[in-house]
Amino acid sequence: MITLTWNKGLQFQAKNEAGHHITVDTLEEFGGFNQGFTPMELLLVALAGCMGMDIIAIVQKKGGAITEFAVEIKGVRAEKAPRRYETVDVTFTCKGEYKKEDLYRAHELSRDKYCGVYATLSSPPEISFHFR
Amino acid sequence: MITLTWNKGLQFQAKNEAGHHITVDTLEEFGGFNQGFTPMELLLVALAGCMGMDIIAIVQKKGGAITEFAVEIKGVRAEKAPRRYETVDVTFTCKGEYKKEDLYRAHELSRDKYCGVYATLSSPPEISFHFR
Repeated sequence: MITLTWNKGLQFQAKNEAGHHITVDTLEEFGGFNQGFTPMELLLVALAGCMGMDIIAIVQKKGGAITEFAVEIKGVRAEKAPRRYETVDVTFTCKGEYKKEDLYRAHELSRDKYCGVYATLSSPPEISFHFR
Repeated sequence: MITLTWNKGLQFQAKNEAGHHITVDTLEEFGGFNQGFTPMELLLVALAGCMGMDIIAIVQKKGGAITEFAVEIKGVRAEKAPRRYETVDVTFTCKGEYKKEDLYRAHELSRDKYCGVYATLSSPPEISFHFR
């Protein structure tokens, strides 16, 4: 269970079960304080993090020695509300001693077999709402 | 553009364009250090934050005076890999002086018209991968 508690404006404090906190916010022009990631940004962080973890684990398991790794992710939103992401571009930078084909295969395995965020984005969950 | 840079284990540091940072991590049993939110948790934070912001803004615009507001969100994952969220439950707690029907209507407007995260989860984006 994740709990988001309203701070001020449109800013929330999110807490997970392990006790970590992050600030969720939006730009001043939309009523926020710009003191944290926005929800739409967090969606991209979730996807990049999930696939990045899979890829590092798989390349290392195949014997690769990664020295630097980064994921850049950018989404293009629809012009009209609700302004969903229509396209998302993910770029992996991987430095070290490993086989290029292992990196490529790792991203395929993440995309098609392991990444829960990618799979949720590909196949919509059933979302229910409750009020207390 | 969001950039995730590998720290150690399966832990990343994410940075947005405004310069904010969050740690993305996973449990020790999966190769992480449990020092931040997991990618699957961040997906839930994104949805709860997006709808929470919409709802607060709409209820306030209709003249409501909210004193406390929270969103609890929980997902149930598939048993088999990639363990996507099959169902997600979102519970809103809203205290203050406002009309109950405004709260309910606000959640409908967020779900059907305004929330970019909900809309992205409902209609899969086209995701492309690149290597550098």
